[in-house]
Amino acid sequence: MIDITEKVDYKEYSREGVKEATGEVVVEMPLTIYVDKEELVTLLCTPERMDYLALGFLWSEGVINTPDEVKKIVVDEEKGAVWVDAAIDREFIKEMMFKRLITSGCGKGTTFYSVVDKVSAQPVVSDIKVTPEQVLDLMSKFQETSHLYKETHGVHSAALCTPDEILTFREDIGRHNAIDKILGECFMSGTALKDKVMLTSGRISSEVLLKTAKKGIPVLVSRTSPTALAVRLAGKLGVTLIGFVRGGKMRVYNHNERVNSEQ
Amino acid sequence: MIDITEKVDYKEYSREGVKEATGEVVVEMPLTIYVDKEELVTLLCTPERMDYLALGFLWSEGVINTPDEVKKIVVDEEKGAVWVDAAIDREFIKEMMFKRLITSGCGKGTTFYSVVDKVSAQPVVSDIKVTPEQVLDLMSKFQETSHLYKETHGVHSAALCTPDEILTFREDIGRHNAIDKILGECFMSGTALKDKVMLTSGRISSEVLLKTAKKGIPVLVSRTSPTALAVRLAGKLGVTLIGFVRGGKMRVYNHNERVNSEQ
Repeated sequence: MIDITEKVDYKEYSREGVKEATGEVVVEMPLTIYVDKEELVTLLCTPERMDYLALGFLWSEGVINTPDEVKKIVVDEEKGAVWVDAAIDREFIKEMMFKRLITSGCGKGTTFYSVVDKVSAQPVVSDIKVTPEQVLDLMSKFQETSHLYKETHGVHSAALCTPDEILTFREDIGRHNAIDKILGECFMSGTALKDKVMLTSGRISSEVLLKTAKKGIPVLVSRTSPTALAVRLAGKLGVTLIGFVRGGKMRVYNHNERVNSEQ
Repeated sequence: MIDITEKVDYKEYSREGVKEATGEVVVEMPLTIYVDKEELVTLLCTPERMDYLALGFLWSEGVINTPDEVKKIVVDEEKGAVWVDAAIDREFIKEMMFKRLITSGCGKGTTFYSVVDKVSAQPVVSDIKVTPEQVLDLMSKFQETSHLYKETHGVHSAALCTPDEILTFREDIGRHNAIDKILGECFMSGTALKDKVMLTSGRISSEVLLKTAKKGIPVLVSRTSPTALAVRLAGKLGVTLIGFVRGGKMRVYNHNERVNSEQ
């Protein structure tokens, strides 16, 4: 059994100062599903009952329809792979895979994970400094700004900020869409990203971390939790990863050299 | 401009009784991105700044790299389409689209949206009845069960229930994965789904609604909000959609014939 949580060290900043601490974050890992030895898809998941996840996914997608069709299932938890031996309609699968639809929770291709190692060769470089007070204030403003959330409780939000103020704020039913809306605006306006802070309302998965790190954003902040994979990638990619910004406190998981608690 | 929230009628149940009410839910709609007239991908989004969303997505995916490459962008908000006229590398796009990776927030192919109309011809049929007390009690147990969430604040959970008890409980960093784990277990065990209730910790998007409706689950419950599209699909597909189960109250958006407030 793979652990589904992982202990990580962080620094807890508050208006009173800094202290070292350790906490649990959820493990996130890629699971590649092979059907009849052919690679079908890679999901990012919590490594628990990967067999059920693979079968449920294949059943949801209409790849398998009855238990009789599944002749064998082999799970390699360490590798993050499930091999399903099943009688399937290859043409249907090809069609399905090709016409894939990106849903509100996501928004990306395999380009990320196949190039994690390549990406890691280009860490984010930035001289930006933030104080804990600035981060706490940005998060307060961020939460005040979210009218649509207040109205419907159905959206995620993201904001691009200087250490002192929110420059752009966007909302969407999809976590990644909210960030992509901000990136799209910066793409057109030519706004520099290497001296900015990105705030997100959702937890920080590896995808969110990679999406912003690839564009050189040095500080990524959430009111909630990062995954273990996001913490590890932030370390490699030179990103200052800040979570649990609430109640006058914040946890800095990596690259706290950009957090200046002396004013 | 398309409205990004929509008024919907619902029935509010509490231990005191039922009342008619109206509230706002967030609009969810598909956005299809065309690059050089070729359909690239369909995202589900909040219909606001679709131009930024399309450009941000394409930039994130590495399809476009500088503003100069974008010769023209045309948005049709009503149709949910953005056409981007850009100098792109067709081979790269083909590769990217084919090797698509499914991320933690999602888990599906186009099969859903292209067949929404076909699916609607097969509404869920079930004689199940639940009382507001049962739903409130299930939600209490559901929240007590989520140890991993309590530990890390980084996961979603889902549970398959009879009106009286939780049968299976699963957690995952992905909303859809948690549901797929339950479906995979039921697939193997042959557990009937047409007399069950599914609980989810996250908001109810059209994807979650369709995923469970396709398997004949008649009652879908969340502590938080559905999207407008999920409410509409639940109506068509015969699903009893219950949201905002909190503080001793719940909102039934559709098919309240399965909610029995007389005991």
